[in-house]
Amino acid sequence: MISKTYQAMLSKKSVIRELSEQATAMAKDGAMEIFDYSLGNPSVPVPQVFNDKIVELLRTGNPMLVHGYSPSLGIPEVKEKIAASLNRRFAMNYEGKDIFMTSGAAGALAHAFRLVTEPGDEILTFAPYFPEYGPYIAPTGCTLRTVPANTENFQINFEAFETMLNPKVQAVLINTPNNPSGVMYSEETLRALSDLLLKKEREFGHEIWLISDEPYREIVFDGKTAPYISHFYPRTLSCYSFSKSLSIPGERIGYLAVNPACGVSDMLVTMCGQISRGIGHNCPSSVIQLAVADTCDITADLSVYETNMNLLYDCFTRMGLRTVRPGGTFYIMPKSPEEDANAFSRKALKHGLVFVPCDTFALPGYFRVAYCTDTEKVKRSLPVIEDFLHKEYGL
Amino acid sequence: MISKTYQAMLSKKSVIRELSEQATAMAKDGAMEIFDYSLGNPSVPVPQVFNDKIVELLRTGNPMLVHGYSPSLGIPEVKEKIAASLNRRFAMNYEGKDIFMTSGAAGALAHAFRLVTEPGDEILTFAPYFPEYGPYIAPTGCTLRTVPANTENFQINFEAFETMLNPKVQAVLINTPNNPSGVMYSEETLRALSDLLLKKEREFGHEIWLISDEPYREIVFDGKTAPYISHFYPRTLSCYSFSKSLSIPGERIGYLAVNPACGVSDMLVTMCGQISRGIGHNCPSSVIQLAVADTCDITADLSVYETNMNLLYDCFTRMGLRTVRPGGTFYIMPKSPEEDANAFSRKALKHGLVFVPCDTFALPGYFRVAYCTDTEKVKRSLPVIEDFLHKEYGL
Repeated sequence: MISKTYQAMLSKKSVIRELSEQATAMAKDGAMEIFDYSLGNPSVPVPQVFNDKIVELLRTGNPMLVHGYSPSLGIPEVKEKIAASLNRRFAMNYEGKDIFMTSGAAGALAHAFRLVTEPGDEILTFAPYFPEYGPYIAPTGCTLRTVPANTENFQINFEAFETMLNPKVQAVLINTPNNPSGVMYSEETLRALSDLLLKKEREFGHEIWLISDEPYREIVFDGKTAPYISHFYPRTLSCYSFSKSLSIPGERIGYLAVNPACGVSDMLVTMCGQISRGIGHNCPSSVIQLAVADTCDITADLSVYETNMNLLYDCFTRMGLRTVRPGGTFYIMPKSPEEDANAFSRKALKHGLVFVPCDTFALPGYFRVAYCTDTEKVKRSLPVIEDFLHKEYGL
Repeated sequence: MISKTYQAMLSKKSVIRELSEQATAMAKDGAMEIFDYSLGNPSVPVPQVFNDKIVELLRTGNPMLVHGYSPSLGIPEVKEKIAASLNRRFAMNYEGKDIFMTSGAAGALAHAFRLVTEPGDEILTFAPYFPEYGPYIAPTGCTLRTVPANTENFQINFEAFETMLNPKVQAVLINTPNNPSGVMYSEETLRALSDLLLKKEREFGHEIWLISDEPYREIVFDGKTAPYISHFYPRTLSCYSFSKSLSIPGERIGYLAVNPACGVSDMLVTMCGQISRGIGHNCPSSVIQLAVADTCDITADLSVYETNMNLLYDCFTRMGLRTVRPGGTFYIMPKSPEEDANAFSRKALKHGLVFVPCDTFALPGYFRVAYCTDTEKVKRSLPVIEDFLHKEYGL
């Protein structure tokens, strides 16, 4: 018998993928330039030093170690180097044993959800959010519930959040800097979040875990650094990916860092090894682990994303679209000039502009622009955007 | 709340790991040479051409492709090359779309179980079997039931198997050449297995899937080739790993190959992409995928395993231990000279010999010898084995 659960999932089409496919077909047609702002795919090359490190490992390393089994929690020296890097950069006090190596942030999240929930529990997250959270959580047997957005500035809507926090909530999932809004939570927001969680923990008589999805942590604008979530809340599980910082999304490498302040990080990381057995994950590639261990302090040249953001932010605001200025990521999320962002996106497509309606991000009426592309192309798109908004909406 | 399910798993200690840790401590002590036959870890280096391929990709490839996202089902050209290799070597008719790239055989199994079962179903496997099958299957909600061994030759005990085949059985899991016995199923066994499954399918009015765990497919002795399972049964899901054939266990690369004769391979491979979302797997490393695509026809120099097997087989049979001669792998599984193989292993350890009792492989009274080590060391161990069996058992 073929699984009905997974068979049923086949019929659900991804709006992003559909738009992207239409755009590819239009680009082939060649009648006009297509500006594909649909996919969040890093557009800058990996730092040379990362490739050099791999070549060095292959040329001079012991092949039995370089390609050998990683212990199920990750290679100890890799975990130690990552802990040391986090301590240096974010004034934390991690040890290697607080780090679990994963297949990107998706792998880290898969483990985090299973660590701190049982089937039937609730996980809360905040609109707008990455639509994959739904399928990520579905097989854990937990319910994902969505706190409505604070559309003023896309910080947290605390009023709605407090109403929804109930004793069944075992984990709260945040993503800052955020996909799709690009907004970064302020220290004030994080302090208020922590205060509320601590208060509710006392009230409910059980822990509430903060699962922090942090793939955009290093893509932060205006010379700022992202506030480090664990500083604000002891029971923080940081889910990190090197996909965006080192521009190596295909290498599937990241980690789960358990805040040692929670007091049970040893146990949680060891439990990750047990969770792995049941989901078919057995560590990321050994050679890739060894390579990130020596490059975890650096990033690819991410400056293009800020340049692109400023060009697009100025354009959208100049044209009168309500847009909260991103603090990081490679996304921006203006308000659609008509209520139906799907209709808006369809009209944009006719002008060669591929924008993703945010309905699947739990925020109808907005659209996402993924500007991980080269700046010259962004510049060429600006008059097209202006022309489109003028012709279709009189802006 | 911390998951009680995974917390409970922490208390279960692995016998193999405990033995290996004791052996490591004894080796440090230095009083005698320790012959650690506990771990099934490839002991030969990767073929140079594999490393050369990676270096070439890093030096001359487009970094956005080499390190870029793989499509969720795997990189199409990689899947096509693997299909072509299987077709050449095993006279199959796979296309790229029948292949799903995975994190080793463990990843392939995790997807295979979820493809063809729903919670509450039964999966049958045959003693002796790799103990990780238990935790692999647990979170699917299926029950793993064990068909008693055919201790005559470790082919299939068909009488017991037929008794246990009932309408709740949706999948049968085999592993040939086998860990821990080293035995390879004969064509006769596979034909009889297929005939019985086809008969029971008709009787039950539903499909029964054959999940074939094949990490040792290329380690076959006496100049033979392993019978290719899909030739015998249309509904075969082949779970393969390059860990042993290319000696790259740390790179976590393998695939699930769906027999196109099943008629629904397109759908099953596409469903794997849905399963992946929920278990945090998003393809193996892109650069490793690209490297195996061009090396999937070759293997590391695996001849040492056959040399070691012959030395140990001759030694154990000479000493009077009942031993079925392995057809492949890097394991051999003699019958313990006393009923309690745990007591036997503890005695062996005092002589510096690390043998794993097969109780955790669902076969009490036998022990596993993993001879993935260098031949000189195996040779030095032979008089120690003889001395041990003589002194402790008068053999």
